[in-house]
Amino acid sequence: MKAIVTVMLKDGVLDPQGKAIGQALGTLGFTGVGDVRAGKVIVLELAETDPSQAKAAAEDMARKLLANTVIESFNVTVQPE
Amino acid sequence: MKAIVTVMLKDGVLDPQGKAIGQALGTLGFTGVGDVRAGKVIVLELAETDPSQAKAAAEDMARKLLANTVIESFNVTVQPE
Repeated sequence: MKAIVTVMLKDGVLDPQGKAIGQALGTLGFTGVGDVRAGKVIVLELAETDPSQAKAAAEDMARKLLANTVIESFNVTVQPE
Repeated sequence: MKAIVTVMLKDGVLDPQGKAIGQALGTLGFTGVGDVRAGKVIVLELAETDPSQAKAAAEDMARKLLANTVIESFNVTVQPE
């Protein structure tokens, strides 16, 4: 089973990478681009076959390693294969 | 309209960050974790209101700036707000 963990900076936390991307898009001539936020996505191949248990395991991994929950929030989705 | 661009290394391209995450999860005692791939997610706030035009614009941005298409593949989804 595949678990997809998306980690984003929380709203209100300064995102310099997103700001830099927004400025670079403006330099390249793209218009109508407002706020840009950059985050990470981690795709985990899990041996667990039960979707709810796989989701719980991935959430535990996110809390303990993948996300810094002081400044980042995460979201887990699972995909059967 | 919100466009979400997910950028991942192509299959077959070595992913040291994913490998490091997989090893760290093992060290922390998580079992049953197979392949781990790490990527980026960029959330763009676009003024464009037409979903297909917003998607086309975000794909253009991904090709020109956000992804290195030699080694990375990208996927764009749009979300009305």
